[in-house]
Amino acid sequence: MKVYNFSAGPAILPQSVMQQAGEAAIDYNGIGLSILEISHRSPEFVAVMDEAVSLVKELLKLPDNYEVLFLSGGASSQFFMTAMNLLGDNDKAYYVNTGTWSKKAIKEAMAFGQVTVLASSEDKKFSYIPKGYDIPDDGKYLHITSNNTVAGTQYREFPATTMPIVCDMSSDIFSREIDVSKFGIIYAGAQKNMGPAGTTLVIVNKDLLGKIDRKIPTMLDYRTHIEKGSMFNTPPVFPIYVSMLTMRWLKDNGGIAAMEKRNAEKAKLLYDEIDRNPFFRGLTAKEDRSLMNVTFETTNPNDYDTFLKAATEANCSGIKGHRSVGGFRASIYNAMPIEGVQALVDVMKSM
Amino acid sequence: MKVYNFSAGPAILPQSVMQQAGEAAIDYNGIGLSILEISHRSPEFVAVMDEAVSLVKELLKLPDNYEVLFLSGGASSQFFMTAMNLLGDNDKAYYVNTGTWSKKAIKEAMAFGQVTVLASSEDKKFSYIPKGYDIPDDGKYLHITSNNTVAGTQYREFPATTMPIVCDMSSDIFSREIDVSKFGIIYAGAQKNMGPAGTTLVIVNKDLLGKIDRKIPTMLDYRTHIEKGSMFNTPPVFPIYVSMLTMRWLKDNGGIAAMEKRNAEKAKLLYDEIDRNPFFRGLTAKEDRSLMNVTFETTNPNDYDTFLKAATEANCSGIKGHRSVGGFRASIYNAMPIEGVQALVDVMKSM
Repeated sequence: MKVYNFSAGPAILPQSVMQQAGEAAIDYNGIGLSILEISHRSPEFVAVMDEAVSLVKELLKLPDNYEVLFLSGGASSQFFMTAMNLLGDNDKAYYVNTGTWSKKAIKEAMAFGQVTVLASSEDKKFSYIPKGYDIPDDGKYLHITSNNTVAGTQYREFPATTMPIVCDMSSDIFSREIDVSKFGIIYAGAQKNMGPAGTTLVIVNKDLLGKIDRKIPTMLDYRTHIEKGSMFNTPPVFPIYVSMLTMRWLKDNGGIAAMEKRNAEKAKLLYDEIDRNPFFRGLTAKEDRSLMNVTFETTNPNDYDTFLKAATEANCSGIKGHRSVGGFRASIYNAMPIEGVQALVDVMKSM
Repeated sequence: MKVYNFSAGPAILPQSVMQQAGEAAIDYNGIGLSILEISHRSPEFVAVMDEAVSLVKELLKLPDNYEVLFLSGGASSQFFMTAMNLLGDNDKAYYVNTGTWSKKAIKEAMAFGQVTVLASSEDKKFSYIPKGYDIPDDGKYLHITSNNTVAGTQYREFPATTMPIVCDMSSDIFSREIDVSKFGIIYAGAQKNMGPAGTTLVIVNKDLLGKIDRKIPTMLDYRTHIEKGSMFNTPPVFPIYVSMLTMRWLKDNGGIAAMEKRNAEKAKLLYDEIDRNPFFRGLTAKEDRSLMNVTFETTNPNDYDTFLKAATEANCSGIKGHRSVGGFRASIYNAMPIEGVQALVDVMKSM
C-alpha cells in the first residue's frame, strides 16, 4: 500500500514521475543505456536540459533578461553565492529574518558586504511574517525567504520595494503564480517542490551581474554557468532529469495557476480541521500560514503520541514537526494529492 | 540488446546497480516510498550514508585521521576548495600540469596562494606524464591529476615527496590499490568510476585543516561537512545511494585488488590490439598509458568513419575521442565487463 509522504524535504513527487524515473534508471527511452550512465553531452541529456530550462521559462513566464540555471550545492550554497556575486564590500543589502534559513543567508552574506536586518520574527519563534517596517532604497537587493519550511509561515504578498528582491523559494517555487520581474535572483533547492535532492534552480536577472570587482572562483560565478548553459562541468544529470519530469507533469496538470488553486484547497481542508477540532491548534499567525508546510500541535501535549500513532497507522508518514519547533508538520507540496490530505484530516477527525 | 558504454563520464555502472537503483526510485526496499522522496534524515538514508562512508574506508584502507565526505559541485569545485582550505595567501603549493583538468586546478588555486607549476606535458599535447623534475619541500602540498581522462595518461607511480599530495582521482578512484597516507586530499567526481553524476567524494587528512586564517563560506569549509557527516545541508541523496551500491558491488566482486587485476587485463587486451593492428595507433607514451581511458586513432585519418560505424553497429557506444584530442577513446572503468572490451577488440580485428 502506498504511503502518503508529508515530509518537508526531500519530499513527495508525482507517482508517475517516480515510476518514469525508475524505468529510465534501468533503460532510458529504449536506447539500451541507463540515464545514469549516458554522457551529459549526449543528445539525449542535452534535450533533457533544454526542456528543463524551457519549462521553467514557460511555467514562470520569465522575462527575456532572466537566465535559468541548474546548479548543485543546495540553497545553502546560494546563501553565499548571491552575496558573493551581487554585493561589493561596501555595498548595502537588506535582509528580513523569518527563520532558520533566513538566518543562515544573513550570516553568509555578512562576509561580502554591508548587511542590515530590516525586520525579524524571531521574538515569536518565527510564527509570523514581519510587516510594516521601512525599507530603504539604497541597497543592492532585499533578501527574503518566501516560505519558512520549519515554522510554517509564508509571504502572501512580497515586500514593496524598488530594489530587486533576492528570494529563497526552496519550499514554494512553482506553488503559486509570481511576478518574476520583481526579483533579482530566485533560488530553490529542488528537493521540496521541484524534484529530488541534488540540484538547485537559480533564476537570475543577468543585468545585475558583473557589477562588482571581486575575484570569484569560476564555479561560483553565475556568469560561468550562464555562458555554458549549466554545463560548464558535469551537471547532476539524474536530479535534473527528474526535475524536468516533475515540471512536465506540472504543465500537463494545468500549470501553476491550476496548482495554486489546488494547493489552496488542500491547505484549507487541513487548516479548517485544525481550527474546528479542539484537539489541535495551529502554530502560526493565521494570515501568514504557509500553504506548503502546515504546522500544528495537539492542544494537550500528552496527546502527541496518540495522534502520531493513529496517523502512522493510516499510512501518513513524515508528519513530525521540526526538532526546533515540535508538534506536527504536514508538508503538502504540489505532488501531494488531495486524497492524502483527506486521509490525514480523517485521522484528525477521529481524535 | 544491451549497449556497451565506453563513455568517459558519466559512464557505465554495473548492470545490477542500475537495476537496483531503478527499483529503489519506484519503491525503496518495500517501504512504500521512493528513495527520491524520503528524508535525508530518515533511518533509511542515514544507513545508506553510513554504509557509503564505511565502504570507502574499508575499500581504500583509510588511516584513522582521514575523513570521508560526499559533497556536490563536482571535482571542478574541488579545484578551488582544496586551495581555499589548505593554502594561505603567502603559502606555496606545487602543481604538475598533465592536461585539461590540471590546468583548471592550477588556475583556480592561483587566487589563494603562491602556486608554482613544477612540470608540464603540454609540449606534447599531454601525451605523457612528466618525470625527473625536482620537487621542493617547502609547499603546503603537491597537486596532481592521477589519470588524464582526456588524453589517456595515468601516473603509474606517484611522485616521491614529503609534502602531502592533493590528487584529483576522478577517473581512476577505486581502480587500483593506493597508499592513502601519501595523500593530503583525494577528490573524485562520482560519475566515472564510482556512481552517477551529482556527488563528489572527498577524502581528507583532517590534520591539515584549520591552519589558515582565511574566512571561508560555511558550505566551502571542509570542517563544516566533517562535523555534520556530509549532512550539513540536504546531500544529493540518490547519487550517494547509487555510489554506495556501486561500492557494495565492488566489495562483493573482490574489492580493489581484484578490480586492479581485471582492469589490467582489460587494458592489455585493448592496447595489444592497438599495437598489433597497423590499422590503429595509440596516442600516448606507452609507459604512461591509462588503464581507464584508452586513446587511439586510425593510422589513416580517412578510416575514422569506417571504424566508428563498425563499432556502433557492434553496440559499442561512446568511443569518440574528446574534441580537443580527436581519434577514439574507449573508457573501460571498473564496471566495463571484459566482454565489452572483447566486443570492441573484435571490431578492431575486423578492420
